[in-house]
Amino acid sequence: MLRRMAKQGKSQGKSRGKEAAGRITPRAEDYPQWYQDVVREAGLAEPAKVVKGCMVIKPHGYAIWEKIQRDLDGRFKATGHQNAYFPLLVPQSFIQKEAEHVEGFAPELAVVTHAGGEALEEPYVVRPTSETIIGYYFSKWIDSYRDLPLLINQWANVMRWEKRTRLFLRTTEFLWQEGHTAHASHEDSELEVRRMLDVYGDHAEELLAVPVVRGIKTESEKFAGAEQSLCIEAMMQDGKALQAGTSHDLGQNFGKAFNVMFQTETGERDYVWQTSWGVSTRLIGGLIMTHSDDAGLVLPPRVAPIHVVIVPIFRKAHEREAVLEAAARIKQRLEQVDIAPETSRYRDFLSVVVDDREGMRPGAKYYEWERRGVPLRVELGPRDLAKGQVCVRMRVDTAAGSGKEFLPEDEFIDTIRSRLLTFQDELLSRARARLSERAVTIDTWDEFEKTFAGDKSTFAWCHWDGTPETEAKIKELTKVTIRCIPLPGQGPDPEPGVCVLTGKPSARRVLMAKAY
Amino acid sequence: MLRRMAKQGKSQGKSRGKEAAGRITPRAEDYPQWYQDVVREAGLAEPAKVVKGCMVIKPHGYAIWEKIQRDLDGRFKATGHQNAYFPLLVPQSFIQKEAEHVEGFAPELAVVTHAGGEALEEPYVVRPTSETIIGYYFSKWIDSYRDLPLLINQWANVMRWEKRTRLFLRTTEFLWQEGHTAHASHEDSELEVRRMLDVYGDHAEELLAVPVVRGIKTESEKFAGAEQSLCIEAMMQDGKALQAGTSHDLGQNFGKAFNVMFQTETGERDYVWQTSWGVSTRLIGGLIMTHSDDAGLVLPPRVAPIHVVIVPIFRKAHEREAVLEAAARIKQRLEQVDIAPETSRYRDFLSVVVDDREGMRPGAKYYEWERRGVPLRVELGPRDLAKGQVCVRMRVDTAAGSGKEFLPEDEFIDTIRSRLLTFQDELLSRARARLSERAVTIDTWDEFEKTFAGDKSTFAWCHWDGTPETEAKIKELTKVTIRCIPLPGQGPDPEPGVCVLTGKPSARRVLMAKAY
Repeated sequence: MLRRMAKQGKSQGKSRGKEAAGRITPRAEDYPQWYQDVVREAGLAEPAKVVKGCMVIKPHGYAIWEKIQRDLDGRFKATGHQNAYFPLLVPQSFIQKEAEHVEGFAPELAVVTHAGGEALEEPYVVRPTSETIIGYYFSKWIDSYRDLPLLINQWANVMRWEKRTRLFLRTTEFLWQEGHTAHASHEDSELEVRRMLDVYGDHAEELLAVPVVRGIKTESEKFAGAEQSLCIEAMMQDGKALQAGTSHDLGQNFGKAFNVMFQTETGERDYVWQTSWGVSTRLIGGLIMTHSDDAGLVLPPRVAPIHVVIVPIFRKAHEREAVLEAAARIKQRLEQVDIAPETSRYRDFLSVVVDDREGMRPGAKYYEWERRGVPLRVELGPRDLAKGQVCVRMRVDTAAGSGKEFLPEDEFIDTIRSRLLTFQDELLSRARARLSERAVTIDTWDEFEKTFAGDKSTFAWCHWDGTPETEAKIKELTKVTIRCIPLPGQGPDPEPGVCVLTGKPSARRVLMAKAY
Repeated sequence: MLRRMAKQGKSQGKSRGKEAAGRITPRAEDYPQWYQDVVREAGLAEPAKVVKGCMVIKPHGYAIWEKIQRDLDGRFKATGHQNAYFPLLVPQSFIQKEAEHVEGFAPELAVVTHAGGEALEEPYVVRPTSETIIGYYFSKWIDSYRDLPLLINQWANVMRWEKRTRLFLRTTEFLWQEGHTAHASHEDSELEVRRMLDVYGDHAEELLAVPVVRGIKTESEKFAGAEQSLCIEAMMQDGKALQAGTSHDLGQNFGKAFNVMFQTETGERDYVWQTSWGVSTRLIGGLIMTHSDDAGLVLPPRVAPIHVVIVPIFRKAHEREAVLEAAARIKQRLEQVDIAPETSRYRDFLSVVVDDREGMRPGAKYYEWERRGVPLRVELGPRDLAKGQVCVRMRVDTAAGSGKEFLPEDEFIDTIRSRLLTFQDELLSRARARLSERAVTIDTWDEFEKTFAGDKSTFAWCHWDGTPETEAKIKELTKVTIRCIPLPGQGPDPEPGVCVLTGKPSARRVLMAKAY
């Protein structure tokens, strides 16, 4: 196991180029560079380079995605959804059937014009999202109210030809899931939209330890083709917002575009009410920017591919065997510990690495595993063995552990589950505290401009007059966008006021920030 | 749960068109039509139609794929592999770097020529397989023997523009996994090729209950760009062979094409030795054609998305509540039963459906669930309740159960795990028996032609003179191909003889059959 991880580290070292080798730029010095450095040094991903705007997701990054998938997939199934798979290619004409949809996606499409050695009569686009092609099959599958609700999810790759890309946060190809459902009434589909937003919010908080604000997108920020888009917004350490997931009320728009009709209980024909909702590998970007520090990646244990690294320490050859033997024993004991929630239908056994590489100082090993975000490190030397103890260090000082601690081996094994889960909770609390400390209410344009001067950002609760013109003006002047109109309980209580820019009446504050 | 499954059935009913609604053609009447009918009636997949040669994998089919993925993924990880993800698009020039590779794949490529509203300077192809692009990154990641072996797997969609397609067996887009590894010596890479072939063989036999012959492809049948291809071949019920998985020794071919060099332990520079190996959604086609019968799909429990269906039976309204209550209780008890192997790192709790649809006769329900391949059915009526028993029926009569059996509820729950695992074993034994009964040795061309007359096929062990000319001639005359040169223990012991067509000397018999 270690052998391979070490090699990953090594190969990553080679690919990162000489100029930046090994250095993580401090956040305070250059935040975007810090992010790139953390991604590179943790071995999560690298720019594909030979394929415009794409990335290669490396094993450590992909293992995080697998944990995200497993958690989400369980939540989807628990709420009655089934997975299916639809074609990668979509007839170009399909994209054009919903007016707003084509306007939103046409500029970003990759187009297959030739196949099997011939020019195609009608080109295909690589799916940027699958509302259109799934709408087409829904029209074949749905006949009556008895067929509804139809609750489908797809795990897939999609492609949007973006001009400016950034690892995980925005890439031309990305991995995601897209839920697509059809319902017999708007009431039902609205409930679904809200249910799935909560699934996303709970996933972000419970698995990723990323607190989110749940809200509604403005008209200009909503999904192309939706009646309304709900979203979860997370605050990154630089105060910018990351839209981490969206859940769309499609109304009957795609039902009409693809003639998805059903017979109602009263015998009439009507168009179905649809929803779609998705999260992507972008979540990994949000995870990184929520917890990591100047020493590199920090991972909550539930999403960490490796939970514990054991570094054996010995100076003399005769100590080697006993230390390695103890390390192997502890690894084996730890690997029997399951940190999945009590109610889980899956197991989540601890993943443990013994870093027995030779010719490398313990300090260098600590440094490397810190960068990779391993939550807990065990240092194990002859003196510890003699005392029947282990030396434990959490990746970040929290209530789960602070500084080096020396624990009897049995106590360590018996308490590791609660220690890791405490660490998970602490990361969430810490991020929550940051969100509430940094969020501000702003009532004057002067203060608004100061708050968002230059590259600065935070979460600002401001009054807005509700017009797209004002929204556009604010964006033009400051690059700040309306992240969402908060759902009940997700921000200050609604109270009337006046727009931060225009002074016109406003019914409630909305969330404003610069965004990724 | 049931509600959705019923809807799936319903919607599937609609999409299958009126002419064939509900009928499964007997195998003896029209085997290819039988296969299509089974796929359709089980709700596994349907032709995409609007995207040439593609399919839509419906929820019941995708759930089978998920079980295949989970099992394989565990085996890959247990043998030291890590998952990663590489771009969908491959620069067209990459495909051309390995001479045999381009010759093999060029005619099947789908090409992206436009993106983001502009013509691309260099077109991209949609990956037909990823040796080339992964070779490129390997050249960046590998520097020294310490970086080796590098053991990577990717779960992905790929696209090959096939002229004749058939659900699961051959589609233009399909889902698969592709392993790509790099090693410091040919000895190492050869071991890997063989290891992964055995992983595939074990998976096919242990999860899918599909017995396979493990062997080596001839020169003309090997992967475009490989030194040697190993394969597993399964016999379908019509006697045709299905290549169910392949594992390739790439030698240094891609290492040279993409300049993947490493420093050896002795300080020299050498090209790495690579392997690649893959299985795809094609496995589902093999699974269907191994076990299913004229009543529809038959599934081994380890790969079945639904293990048990409970059909409540009552004539009078006052019986309804008690029967449904008992059904819910039994469902809940069954769902606590985990049929994963003792050593498993995952859980595999029974999935149980209570078919409480109203206005549908029990017989119609039995019929529908038989078609969907549910291994075990429970019929539950007021008389059973009074006696504290359940009526159990296995999907196929085997040692796991034959005809209707009446069991006390507790005994049923206590024995269901072993009953389902026995059923699994029986399906494998039955398929093994068929393979060994039907396999023949043929020594004369006369007998060969008779055996393979018209559409007929079986597994034939024949001597072959070892030349590609003879191989081509046999194929031209009879459509029979050499499926593989068997590995030790996988067929008759090697003994010299004379070629079945030319009479020239032969060192050993090879496996011949018509193939999917």
